Amino acid sequence: MTHASAPSAHPAAHETAVYTHGHHESVLRSHTWRTAANSAAYLLPSLTAGLDVLDVGCGPGTITADLAALVAPGRVTAVDAAEGVLANARAVAAERGLGNVEFAVADVHALDFPDDSFDVVHAHQVLQHVGDPVQALREMRRVCRPGGVVAARDSDYGAFTWFPERPALDGWLDLYHRVARANGGEPDAGRRLVSWARRAGFTEITTTAATWCFATPDERAWWSGLWADRTTGSDYAELAVSGGHATRAELTSIAEAWREWGAREDAWFMVPHGEILCRVS
Amino acid sequence: MTHASAPSAHPAAHETAVYTHGHHESVLRSHTWRTAANSAAYLLPSLTAGLDVLDVGCGPGTITADLAALVAPGRVTAVDAAEGVLANARAVAAERGLGNVEFAVADVHALDFPDDSFDVVHAHQVLQHVGDPVQALREMRRVCRPGGVVAARDSDYGAFTWFPERPALDGWLDLYHRVARANGGEPDAGRRLVSWARRAGFTEITTTAATWCFATPDERAWWSGLWADRTTGSDYAELAVSGGHATRAELTSIAEAWREWGAREDAWFMVPHGEILCRVS
Repeated sequence: MTHASAPSAHPAAHETAVYTHGHHESVLRSHTWRTAANSAAYLLPSLTAGLDVLDVGCGPGTITADLAALVAPGRVTAVDAAEGVLANARAVAAERGLGNVEFAVADVHALDFPDDSFDVVHAHQVLQHVGDPVQALREMRRVCRPGGVVAARDSDYGAFTWFPERPALDGWLDLYHRVARANGGEPDAGRRLVSWARRAGFTEITTTAATWCFATPDERAWWSGLWADRTTGSDYAELAVSGGHATRAELTSIAEAWREWGAREDAWFMVPHGEILCRVS
Repeated sequence: MTHASAPSAHPAAHETAVYTHGHHESVLRSHTWRTAANSAAYLLPSLTAGLDVLDVGCGPGTITADLAALVAPGRVTAVDAAEGVLANARAVAAERGLGNVEFAVADVHALDFPDDSFDVVHAHQVLQHVGDPVQALREMRRVCRPGGVVAARDSDYGAFTWFPERPALDGWLDLYHRVARANGGEPDAGRRLVSWARRAGFTEITTTAATWCFATPDERAWWSGLWADRTTGSDYAELAVSGGHATRAELTSIAEAWREWGAREDAWFMVPHGEILCRVS
């Protein structure tokens, strides 16, 4: 996940996006659940041993580590705009004994790599948070070798679907849209990936969609609990209040609705994603 | 797909649902595209040679034929409420040289099979169209042997997501919801499958979600064309007008919007589905 620097340090419009979630424990609890299998299945057939991969917006690095295991002895360079989260990512790689990964801070809008540096350039749930996703894709294309692939996957908040209905959860989604957009992001990114890729100059685009689905007792408890906690404890909560989007009392109501929803035995939640695999010519 | 008989012949509430689409060519064009791979992937790991399968609401039988090939020498019994469409299904099976499939007319609310008749009972995009999906699942459970599985997959119209936005397509979705519900169906079925299965008595339910995604020129032309044609030419069009839900002029506008949308190079459409695999104890 990309976390751009504060607006004061980067005056250009595309650099002003603020990573909406921040890196509160309730956010990392979600991100460290992510694996190549549950979050990058569409990319796996393109990976073979020996390929060099750039993983943009690696966050805590669990997907990164899976990619590194798959392409070894190829190397994975993993970058994130937030220095802090790279400590988590380095720890994950060290724990798995991976010697073919290195980490660095980078801005996806202006990657500090020469043209044609990688065989695969990957970004999971990054483009929804950056100020200029088309510029990000241009940069990802520039550093990818001819014949390589640029892969991006983003959820689409407007397509999030759940049962049973709860007015407070409708309010949660509406609030999330407002906060994320005020920060320069586009939460309904999944549906826009093809459009963004075409504007970035790609012509050979393979499009898929895939979901996360949470319905078992464990999944419900995990998903509802982390959103309840994010809603009251993460950067998102601070941004919601400081931006005038919600009061503390409203956030508390939303968190309660999440916990009530998660306690329902018939509760079901679907997170759809758009996915693009773009061939670099 | 299930097509219940006319209300006059079946007074009970659960039997009065009318199959919203009918079997116009523009509907069959969609249904015959369906394969086990694109529509029943969640079920495939449960299939082995020799199992007996009941395929409920088989429609034109393309998924049925794939299932039959996978379980041979096991047998597939495929039923649909509409006699007419079974001719298509029989032709598909004959064309593929499948000797282990038989077809019959049946009402999923009251299946004419003894208890414990099948190892796998499957229904693709059926429960959204029936008057009483919980009763349908009870019947599917009754005819399934202990240790077997009942599998159901339904799209969720409320989760359909597309780009770019078109007010006339919002109108299409709203109209579809109204027409389908007036006919006794529940178009937002995907999110309700777990709830329905629990009410039908299942306790061991594996839940997944999966999508169809249409974005290439061929996919866009096919999907937009069939919806444009359905909107003006199928049973759905007749039901929309006769039920007072839309005028012919409104239907023409919606069809035009579909064709315009399909001509956009950056157009993207996602059809999410809920899926349940229920173990019979």
